[in-house]
Amino acid sequence: MAKKSATKGWQELEPSAANGLFDRRAFFKGGATLTAAMTGYTLSESASAQRLVDDPWSAGPGTPTGSYESPSRFESGVARTMTNPNGEPRGQQSRTPHHLLDGSFTPNGLHMVISRSGAPDIDPEQHRLVIHGLVRQPLTFTLDALARYPMVSRMAFVECGGNSAAMWSPEPLDVGVQQIHGLVSSAEWTGVMLSTLLEETGIDPSAKWLIAEGSDALTPHRSVPIAKALDDAMIALYQNGERIMPGNGYPMRLLLPGWEGNMHVKWLRRIELVDQPAMSIYEARTYTQLLPGGKAYRFHFLQEVKSFITRPSPGVDLSTPGFYEISGVAYSATGRISKVMVSADGGQSWAEAALEGPVQPKAFTRFRAPWHWDGGPAVLQSRAWDESGNFQPTREQIVAHRGEATRVPNPNAFPNQHYNGPTSWAVNTDGEVKHVYA
Amino acid sequence: MAKKSATKGWQELEPSAANGLFDRRAFFKGGATLTAAMTGYTLSESASAQRLVDDPWSAGPGTPTGSYESPSRFESGVARTMTNPNGEPRGQQSRTPHHLLDGSFTPNGLHMVISRSGAPDIDPEQHRLVIHGLVRQPLTFTLDALARYPMVSRMAFVECGGNSAAMWSPEPLDVGVQQIHGLVSSAEWTGVMLSTLLEETGIDPSAKWLIAEGSDALTPHRSVPIAKALDDAMIALYQNGERIMPGNGYPMRLLLPGWEGNMHVKWLRRIELVDQPAMSIYEARTYTQLLPGGKAYRFHFLQEVKSFITRPSPGVDLSTPGFYEISGVAYSATGRISKVMVSADGGQSWAEAALEGPVQPKAFTRFRAPWHWDGGPAVLQSRAWDESGNFQPTREQIVAHRGEATRVPNPNAFPNQHYNGPTSWAVNTDGEVKHVYA
Repeated sequence: MAKKSATKGWQELEPSAANGLFDRRAFFKGGATLTAAMTGYTLSESASAQRLVDDPWSAGPGTPTGSYESPSRFESGVARTMTNPNGEPRGQQSRTPHHLLDGSFTPNGLHMVISRSGAPDIDPEQHRLVIHGLVRQPLTFTLDALARYPMVSRMAFVECGGNSAAMWSPEPLDVGVQQIHGLVSSAEWTGVMLSTLLEETGIDPSAKWLIAEGSDALTPHRSVPIAKALDDAMIALYQNGERIMPGNGYPMRLLLPGWEGNMHVKWLRRIELVDQPAMSIYEARTYTQLLPGGKAYRFHFLQEVKSFITRPSPGVDLSTPGFYEISGVAYSATGRISKVMVSADGGQSWAEAALEGPVQPKAFTRFRAPWHWDGGPAVLQSRAWDESGNFQPTREQIVAHRGEATRVPNPNAFPNQHYNGPTSWAVNTDGEVKHVYA
Repeated sequence: MAKKSATKGWQELEPSAANGLFDRRAFFKGGATLTAAMTGYTLSESASAQRLVDDPWSAGPGTPTGSYESPSRFESGVARTMTNPNGEPRGQQSRTPHHLLDGSFTPNGLHMVISRSGAPDIDPEQHRLVIHGLVRQPLTFTLDALARYPMVSRMAFVECGGNSAAMWSPEPLDVGVQQIHGLVSSAEWTGVMLSTLLEETGIDPSAKWLIAEGSDALTPHRSVPIAKALDDAMIALYQNGERIMPGNGYPMRLLLPGWEGNMHVKWLRRIELVDQPAMSIYEARTYTQLLPGGKAYRFHFLQEVKSFITRPSPGVDLSTPGFYEISGVAYSATGRISKVMVSADGGQSWAEAALEGPVQPKAFTRFRAPWHWDGGPAVLQSRAWDESGNFQPTREQIVAHRGEATRVPNPNAFPNQHYNGPTSWAVNTDGEVKHVYA
């Protein structure tokens, strides 16, 4: 389909960074005309078709669409990876295939999942949420009762503290965006603000923390400061418009926008108000942040500003030279994404990407940058800023501060966490894309 | 679970409309305190639980979540209706169960579908889009070629011109929101602007319309003015972040934000630029708008401003008196929703609902209004305004203008179209909700 490199009108355009990268304004300055000039008829075939020949699927009736629809059978490769498909008695991770998706959030079938002992098969009629401890009046909430409270909808990402673990490896690994960054997803969550329910129970002045507990077999629990509970914590009941998926906590989960994934306790059954944290395994051992000097961050709540390019990326290679759109996602625990810069020469020069609006805080923001690939080697990178003034450190900076992994991590091990530096994709002259450090 | 009517602090609140309806400011004025005062402990049970008894699902490992996840088996009732489940050679409609959903858009499994001859099983590698006719250079686009163009994501509703047909019936019908309004849904669509592709083909000055043709067996086609093609028409490739569902046009559909559903041609294979409309069956017979005098609107592109309450609604009844949130969706072809008013006394008095932001043009906007049900009869209604100054007519006004149906419609017949007046739900003293005219 693609025929030759761009020629038409190409000279009218000035890349704003080296290696053919254009500024976001190229999308607007002259609009489609510039795009057409950039593409220069390289992407499509001339057609004489006055009348199409019918394809086989046009020759007879199709199939009725079911009461609940699933993707086409041709999309079976658009799937989460499964580390424990047979449900052995250990944890499992399901990673989102970001390289095969587009848009501003993650569809429910493909949202990342981590569980410690599988998804419990909860009967929503029988399930209860109890709020007790340092309250005026302990209360039990059924799903029907929760449905009567004022609700709120908001987009929010959920990211495992161990996401991007491969980036701590001393050497780049032969993996793509799903293996490296697949443990973050973003969705619209609808539910009742936890602050609304705490107004019902009352809060004893001595309460400083809450302990949230899930009803899966391991009853994992995490401690959360009361201030977060009164800020934007939600008892989420719906995910992207429908009831929460089984793997994401059906029928209810705690949502703590921007905070470490395992704190968003799924299959939530209990919130106890207390005067000090529980120091549970997931805050006293796993997900502590080990530092080079042997000390550790006791709590590392925030998933800091981050971005990665989803296309091109390993497995989504280039074909012929010419126009491509570089596309990816950015997000931050500390507010809205304010800027994403993209490089095609490994960070030597940068162009500003366009952000898909409306940009929402603590949620995915899709960024896009026009790029003319000349057929030569290139190294693609992105780097994000947020409205609070935070920005992604370089990989060198964060590794110097936190220490490299002591062994090459496999994607299921977490020798270190909370990587939020950039990710580099190298494009070779065949158009193949590989993970590199640059 | 619910114990008694509200007493605590109730006297501190002043409803802003009759029958216990509060203004949107009740959500903010004092925040959760007012909500707690309104609910007055009617919604939850006191709990002494220092330690929960384990439910059966907490007693052992759960199930691993699959590579593509589906809702819990307890949600099997959250389903589209199917008018032609066996795929007989006639049309089919699948309606969205709005009364069981919440949030700002429709999940992909439950998006409304109308098809004339079922969903074709299209191989995306073989599928082609041809743009020809009054162009400088006819072109054929593969899916791979389209993937290289600049993309855009936007929320947009798609509504059948025949949605809400039951509202033309002389007498209210014993149906709920899914049967009346289930042929509208809203989603995030990602794809290539049609204007971008028309820059590639060029446009002959004599071209005034385009004819879009689908590749399902009936090859339905519709005529679209060139101005819309150059405004916000999109070749949509992704729906809510993943590839378009089979019933919604996999692998590509035409998206014409705000315009009549059947114009968003699915399984799109051809766009021909022409100098006059095709006068195809779906624009010359079906979806013409018959008027009382025997004349008809030739083209009725816009799906005008509309709203309906999804909860409470028939099938989502009330239990005990006390606080409820009235929730619904509003949308308009002519811009952003600017205001939704809600009534609890059949339109005699009104309170302004809160709108979930960010409010986006030509897409669902969720509205919410706090309500204290005193246990007596009530009639709930909503009415929406948009930023262009358009607003919903009363049912009397639109029926006077367009004419009532000559027979009681069944939900599969379309004696008349484009109803955008209000919908009324009557609540009786048992808390049952019924469709009425008021």
